Amino acid sequence: MLNFRNDYSEGAHPTILEAMRKNNLTPVVGYGKDEFCAHAVAMIRERFSCPTADVHFLVGGTQTNLTLIGCALKPYEAVICADTGHINVHETGAIESTGHKVLPVYKEDGKLTPADVLSVIRSHTDEHMVKPRMIYLSQSTEVGTVYTRQELEALRKLCDKLHLLLYLDGARLASGMTAPDCDLMPADLPRLCDAFYIGGTKNGALFGEALVLVNDALKPDFRYMIKNRGAMLAKGWLLGMQFEGLFTGDLYFTLGRHANAMAARLRDGLLEKGYELAYPSKTNQVFAVLDKDQIFELTTEAAFEFTKNWSKTHDVVRFVTSWATKPEDIDAMLALL
Amino acid sequence: MLNFRNDYSEGAHPTILEAMRKNNLTPVVGYGKDEFCAHAVAMIRERFSCPTADVHFLVGGTQTNLTLIGCALKPYEAVICADTGHINVHETGAIESTGHKVLPVYKEDGKLTPADVLSVIRSHTDEHMVKPRMIYLSQSTEVGTVYTRQELEALRKLCDKLHLLLYLDGARLASGMTAPDCDLMPADLPRLCDAFYIGGTKNGALFGEALVLVNDALKPDFRYMIKNRGAMLAKGWLLGMQFEGLFTGDLYFTLGRHANAMAARLRDGLLEKGYELAYPSKTNQVFAVLDKDQIFELTTEAAFEFTKNWSKTHDVVRFVTSWATKPEDIDAMLALL
Amino acid sequence: MLNFRNDYSEGAHPTILEAMRKNNLTPVVGYGKDEFCAHAVAMIRERFSCPTADVHFLVGGTQTNLTLIGCALKPYEAVICADTGHINVHETGAIESTGHKVLPVYKEDGKLTPADVLSVIRSHTDEHMVKPRMIYLSQSTEVGTVYTRQELEALRKLCDKLHLLLYLDGARLASGMTAPDCDLMPADLPRLCDAFYIGGTKNGALFGEALVLVNDALKPDFRYMIKNRGAMLAKGWLLGMQFEGLFTGDLYFTLGRHANAMAARLRDGLLEKGYELAYPSKTNQVFAVLDKDQIFELTTEAAFEFTKNWSKTHDVVRFVTSWATKPEDIDAMLALL
Amino acid sequence: MLNFRNDYSEGAHPTILEAMRKNNLTPVVGYGKDEFCAHAVAMIRERFSCPTADVHFLVGGTQTNLTLIGCALKPYEAVICADTGHINVHETGAIESTGHKVLPVYKEDGKLTPADVLSVIRSHTDEHMVKPRMIYLSQSTEVGTVYTRQELEALRKLCDKLHLLLYLDGARLASGMTAPDCDLMPADLPRLCDAFYIGGTKNGALFGEALVLVNDALKPDFRYMIKNRGAMLAKGWLLGMQFEGLFTGDLYFTLGRHANAMAARLRDGLLEKGYELAYPSKTNQVFAVLDKDQIFELTTEAAFEFTKNWSKTHDVVRFVTSWATKPEDIDAMLALL
Repeated sequence: MLNFRNDYSEGAHPTILEAMRKNNLTPVVGYGKDEFCAHAVAMIRERFSCPTADVHFLVGGTQTNLTLIGCALKPYEAVICADTGHINVHETGAIESTGHKVLPVYKEDGKLTPADVLSVIRSHTDEHMVKPRMIYLSQSTEVGTVYTRQELEALRKLCDKLHLLLYLDGARLASGMTAPDCDLMPADLPRLCDAFYIGGTKNGALFGEALVLVNDALKPDFRYMIKNRGAMLAKGWLLGMQFEGLFTGDLYFTLGRHANAMAARLRDGLLEKGYELAYPSKTNQVFAVLDKDQIFELTTEAAFEFTKNWSKTHDVVRFVTSWATKPEDIDAMLALL
Repeated sequence: MLNFRNDYSEGAHPTILEAMRKNNLTPVVGYGKDEFCAHAVAMIRERFSCPTADVHFLVGGTQTNLTLIGCALKPYEAVICADTGHINVHETGAIESTGHKVLPVYKEDGKLTPADVLSVIRSHTDEHMVKPRMIYLSQSTEVGTVYTRQELEALRKLCDKLHLLLYLDGARLASGMTAPDCDLMPADLPRLCDAFYIGGTKNGALFGEALVLVNDALKPDFRYMIKNRGAMLAKGWLLGMQFEGLFTGDLYFTLGRHANAMAARLRDGLLEKGYELAYPSKTNQVFAVLDKDQIFELTTEAAFEFTKNWSKTHDVVRFVTSWATKPEDIDAMLALL
Repeated sequence: MLNFRNDYSEGAHPTILEAMRKNNLTPVVGYGKDEFCAHAVAMIRERFSCPTADVHFLVGGTQTNLTLIGCALKPYEAVICADTGHINVHETGAIESTGHKVLPVYKEDGKLTPADVLSVIRSHTDEHMVKPRMIYLSQSTEVGTVYTRQELEALRKLCDKLHLLLYLDGARLASGMTAPDCDLMPADLPRLCDAFYIGGTKNGALFGEALVLVNDALKPDFRYMIKNRGAMLAKGWLLGMQFEGLFTGDLYFTLGRHANAMAARLRDGLLEKGYELAYPSKTNQVFAVLDKDQIFELTTEAAFEFTKNWSKTHDVVRFVTSWATKPEDIDAMLALL
Repeated sequence: MLNFRNDYSEGAHPTILEAMRKNNLTPVVGYGKDEFCAHAVAMIRERFSCPTADVHFLVGGTQTNLTLIGCALKPYEAVICADTGHINVHETGAIESTGHKVLPVYKEDGKLTPADVLSVIRSHTDEHMVKPRMIYLSQSTEVGTVYTRQELEALRKLCDKLHLLLYLDGARLASGMTAPDCDLMPADLPRLCDAFYIGGTKNGALFGEALVLVNDALKPDFRYMIKNRGAMLAKGWLLGMQFEGLFTGDLYFTLGRHANAMAARLRDGLLEKGYELAYPSKTNQVFAVLDKDQIFELTTEAAFEFTKNWSKTHDVVRFVTSWATKPEDIDAMLALL
């Protein structure tokens, strides 16, 4: 069975698992106050050129989003996102359960523009409505698109003007930042965002997301907030150890680049065979328009997800590649199609 | 200054204020456990033919909505409403602050249909998304339209099939139920809804909404929930006394009918003068399309609200009539136009 | 039936009701943005010598507490109070429902000291425990005692040192501040508290509490918070009108002084007859130790509350006087005893 | 450096890590819907004789507590626990942040009795106070004591009578259930509790707690709740795999028995040397009364935690043993003392 269901179907990159094994029986202080975490924090600060940022390691993406957003906003404040945004669709109301409204904007390509944000701001005029206070983006987006430097700078400028916070969800940051159509550099993220997270789960870690707090106002007492949400891992060094591994020899972005290359190979093959693609993704998600009967047949040979209806006869399916995808998997998939 | 800003610009119907004055110095037991409340409950049960319903008196509409919805839903459950729904737009995220996502459906006429609800249900397929569990309606809607008996029955049928709760916000129930295009009878509400509230604030009371709990599952411990949300009025008898007044001699619906008649008089006058109406409202809200310059001039003589942009040259404004509006106010307004 | 059940058994002081009646049919702008509220704010600022404070009018005490505390604290922050504190015992978990832990300290006399607060602070050492951030007091306390100027100054000093907020619940402020053992002046409250509220419900209003925000950090967007909690009264002028009445001719403190005088008359009578008092209250609550049989008999002639068990044969009952209590009520009660 | 700081200072039992390594590159379906989890659920159902219970795997203890309690209670309901209870002291207000009051009872030995619970119930008389609805216990307790079968049966009986839920936190279940003074059998837990969790983090897993839902009322939609709290691990099979390992050959209880044996060895040595013990723990926590100077000196050679002050000259310290503690560690520690 070929697997293109998602980018978190395997365990960890072998070097990471090996580090865990090697240190397994050495007693370490808990809750992330260990040397592995300290070192991983230093590596991230250096790689992203943000020496004064606070870095916290959490277990998963929804957990990271709800902990950050629940801490950054006052009860009546809301967060703006694309309608396809993970916090709007795929977190079972986690953000609302911290008390905050999510304000979605319908965007075919999954990307917010300053005009979108302005339109939301302008329609929220007084205290009878929520106060929009944060922009939530993801890089890459749920439909595989990416923000360019110019686009992110434009949003930052608007945030400065309107006193908004800019938060970037990096569940797929490795793939997003190494995509051919992304000209953002790691140092741009702390320069332009108030906070962002570096996703490990979908890029070589067993689990783990590194949340980077750039804006000083978000920093105080954040460990209290992590614990308050049940998000403080007892054996916190497991997170530090994994991010140490990911930022040794730039493994993190190397894995992202690999996932993108595998997706490109699949995309090229699909286009060659005359298939249509539903979104202009150059990252590790490939959205192909397939005949419904063909989809039904393929499910016995390959794992992938249904995305949405395209026409009477066709649906959109999603093939996701990862750090663990092999060229021969792509070729086998193309052979099936 | 003519006042069409809203239907809560005056105090209370004089008979209500007189009842308050008369009993002012008589000691009464607090928190709604008094004779006035007991009598008002009995009157409401009779008028709406729901002898076994629980009736609770709260101070305001947002408070009533957040108390009921926050009690009826589990943390991961969500409420479906029209995009213009009061809980979606005008409650400053009150519902989300109780932890629940509001799922809006874009509806030009402010009314949900079974097809709308089904579409939301179908796009929420598993535990990675919220579980839609309640339908929120209002009668009349924010744009002045009303649900007919057939429409409400169709929604009820769907709710039964899909195990959904049906909650009707009656902030403007008096006007809604007495509108010429509404064939619903008071007894239909407890027959078709799991809960609904009878709005007093906008129809002759100083303040107060009567929440009617029909579904037995919603009844237990509801007074705990009221207190938990800071919604239990110490001098609860003030609420009972007002609803006693409103349901004496059917004053409640008489006032609603009056407000509708005043709106009809305004509407007829507007149409006669060639104005366009933005929504097919037959209730106490009149949405008129006016020239922007004219709007600017009118603001010095009359109070009303801007609703939305209509065209380059025209905007939609809202005139609201109430139990306190006089025919001569309408005529004066028409003279201005 | 003599009534000593509480201080909110009657309606409003007649002058207040008369103001409501007089203005009943004049259209006023809603949500507290009216002239009555503006004037009442000015009167309060002057009476309490706090020209730059923000003043908001809410309907009830629990509502005021949950709105203020829910806005002032971060999710992991907690509020310290006496174990008898209203927020700890009598608000059905309203504060916890806004997400915050209440940290009670057992105090026989209902009053917190700097040593109590220090002890709580010292036992909360790191991010695995909540962060105590606010002190909640009430004046008078639930057992009728009062804070003196020196006591409140000592708490303020500690708050400054430890970066804590000091919040004073004034549900019974009129009685507390005019008690013979209270040397605090109105101007001391904004000087020493970050926020406090002036209770109207228990002192001559139909309902209403005036929340005074002194600390600038608590001021921004507070109207959003009020609406978010369903606490914004549509006909907000009803609150302004009542506080206008209460601060005209210093009626507010005059009524408090009257309630205290009535309580003193009862207390003196009780002591003369040889009864023991359970708490050293000089405010409008009298806690008498009565024989259980006698209590049973009295309940047919007078309304009062059971407070706690005192001994095998005796219980403590509470007699509350109010602005509406008459000397002859006291004398009749004493005659019964 | 000898390590007695806690029982979560090492990684995982080697067989568990080996299972992870072995399956590392095999694609598995996410979110706990895999074969490993299914098998682990079956093993737990069998070992605890609860074939119809639902079993869910979560990452940590605070997370498990807040997810279960937040789902089981209505907003105005509260949970009773010993004052030392983990949810009361060491979860940074996590339970309160889900909206629920924790009602602590002061208990020197950390164990609740039916009398304690009754006393709380009796002091919560009406809707002005929270409604106590759940009892929270832990086995073993924070001070190392255990509930016997008779004690737990007595609590169950009271729960049945008063319609209360009984929830048992098993962070240290392996040690608790295998303690010499514990006569409870695994099958007793589902018989007597509405829900309980089997702690993995402190007993051989890298992380992970298995929550067992026995009461049918707690089961519906629980996966929604897990996701809503950000507690659904993407690579859920990592949890299943670990519990498979722990329940293969009864490793789970074997490890607990080992930790207890190591603690007994330390305890015996301490008593022999004339030291006093602060609590009658027979589980893996040893609370020793030591001279303050001696404590200061020991900290350079061994890691352990300060617990509380004992006298002017002495403090209580806690030595925790684990599945990874070796007899020679104990002997070395005893040699230091």
